Amino acid sequence: MRITVIGLGLIGGSLLRALAKAGHEVVGFDADPATRELAGESGFRVAGSVREAVAGSAVAALAVPLPILPEVVADLDGFDGLVTDVTSVKGPVRDLLAGRRFVGGHPMAGKETSGFAASEAGLFEGCAWVLCLEPHGTDLGDWLLLAGLFTGLGARVVPVTAAEHDTAVAQISHVPHLFAAVLARQLLANPLAGTLAAGSFRDGTRVAATRPELIAAMCGGNGSAVRSELHRLIGELRQLEADLELPDPIGAITDHLRPASEARRAWPAAPGRPEPVAADVQALLALGRSGGWVTAVNGTELVGKRPETDRFSP
Amino acid sequence: MRITVIGLGLIGGSLLRALAKAGHEVVGFDADPATRELAGESGFRVAGSVREAVAGSAVAALAVPLPILPEVVADLDGFDGLVTDVTSVKGPVRDLLAGRRFVGGHPMAGKETSGFAASEAGLFEGCAWVLCLEPHGTDLGDWLLLAGLFTGLGARVVPVTAAEHDTAVAQISHVPHLFAAVLARQLLANPLAGTLAAGSFRDGTRVAATRPELIAAMCGGNGSAVRSELHRLIGELRQLEADLELPDPIGAITDHLRPASEARRAWPAAPGRPEPVAADVQALLALGRSGGWVTAVNGTELVGKRPETDRFSP
Repeated sequence: MRITVIGLGLIGGSLLRALAKAGHEVVGFDADPATRELAGESGFRVAGSVREAVAGSAVAALAVPLPILPEVVADLDGFDGLVTDVTSVKGPVRDLLAGRRFVGGHPMAGKETSGFAASEAGLFEGCAWVLCLEPHGTDLGDWLLLAGLFTGLGARVVPVTAAEHDTAVAQISHVPHLFAAVLARQLLANPLAGTLAAGSFRDGTRVAATRPELIAAMCGGNGSAVRSELHRLIGELRQLEADLELPDPIGAITDHLRPASEARRAWPAAPGRPEPVAADVQALLALGRSGGWVTAVNGTELVGKRPETDRFSP
Repeated sequence: MRITVIGLGLIGGSLLRALAKAGHEVVGFDADPATRELAGESGFRVAGSVREAVAGSAVAALAVPLPILPEVVADLDGFDGLVTDVTSVKGPVRDLLAGRRFVGGHPMAGKETSGFAASEAGLFEGCAWVLCLEPHGTDLGDWLLLAGLFTGLGARVVPVTAAEHDTAVAQISHVPHLFAAVLARQLLANPLAGTLAAGSFRDGTRVAATRPELIAAMCGGNGSAVRSELHRLIGELRQLEADLELPDPIGAITDHLRPASEARRAWPAAPGRPEPVAADVQALLALGRSGGWVTAVNGTELVGKRPETDRFSP
């Protein structure tokens, strides 16, 4: 089975290397001639266009930034294989690819460096790789094909809907970046704060140093989920503000914070024992919602794991 | 000059050790007999009561937790020396000690362990030690005496009013703890979030694992400043929420986040060159407001430093 990777940066380049190492026939393409040359010199078959790259392939993995995705999708005209992607927002991409054989993906992998030169075959070992599964709209066979491919690279494949993915990444990445920025902004008006700041400030604001264009693109690209989660958390902060006006603020705030403190101390949870998972959309989505993932696919025999404790269940 | 330290935990014990090492005559007291014994075995003179400990001393440093402070202050009846403290909130302590010779302090030092056994003479080297200076209410001679004592231990003595201190610690510690808790709380309702969470979540929620009683006591003890700063930051988050509904959210959010990103990358600022500082309340407060501190006191000759850049000035 031949697999095409479009976009040979850190993620695409690593995917090309990992698939080749796992024994698959791969072909790559990148819009940048220098990147194509670099990949060719590394021994990979590199095509001169998207059309040429996907011709005869069973799977096309699009590893290009979100703003570039529409033009790459337009270049896929005539390709009737399975398409997947690696971008960090899944609802808009699902809509963009509507009507195609498509399963959206998001490998939660990365490192400080970027580009093909930084790519490595082992990048996905142990990483959570979200693979979107819509109750109406995803072909289970297509999903299983990709789940088999990516578990074969050592990834933990997480089955969720695009909407569930977008909410979760708003919660664990996009909104935390906004919180960090708002905390860091306090330095502007009060130099004294910068002199007294220590560990809690350092860690709570670390990601505020990210380039503002990147944070804005992440949040704007996932605008609906970010807005909704941000709104909810603002409500919780207002509750804490109200707690501070109570006759016994300390008791009220302690009660409010205790579950958060326990949850944070129990995170990350250890994975439980391997368990069989039915090759069924609802069973897979239930696994994903419980924090679980697929570790192996053998035809329709699936093995999964989930976090050892269920203390995070509502 | 004899100095008494009341409360021989991590901070009080370290202060006893540091002052003794700097050549001062010291005497200690702790309400816990085992701690008194431990300090005595370490070669320190330990009194059997607060009254006995302060008799004949020029300075009494109260290193007890905020809830204990009122009863220790009551035990100071008859002591007419200079009193200071080390608690993390300064407005309420200023009010509690009104009418006494008092200068409030807050050494920004600590470590993971606590108790006299964890104390060390070098704990205050390089640490920021807030020493409160009220335009009406602090005797400058008393302030200079303590500033000389603590710079002699290697501390960077930061001159600010109690209100400025309480606002700054709300900004850089108390509100960040509440933000972290609200982010960590998301784990409760969504196990999927815990599976996908990585670096930005880990750092942004680290302090949420603190015991909730401690966070609540910090925030409740500094309730007025925390409420006011929290309210302001909620307003900024609501602005970001509104930005997300604009026709060009990415441009608006980028503009909003850029100053925060630049400020965070420039933090912590390198200290500038030593500069002379006038032994004058307004000059000292101006130094503290600019993020600066006193490094040495020689009679009324003071040396200070401030952060090298003034890019945080409004």
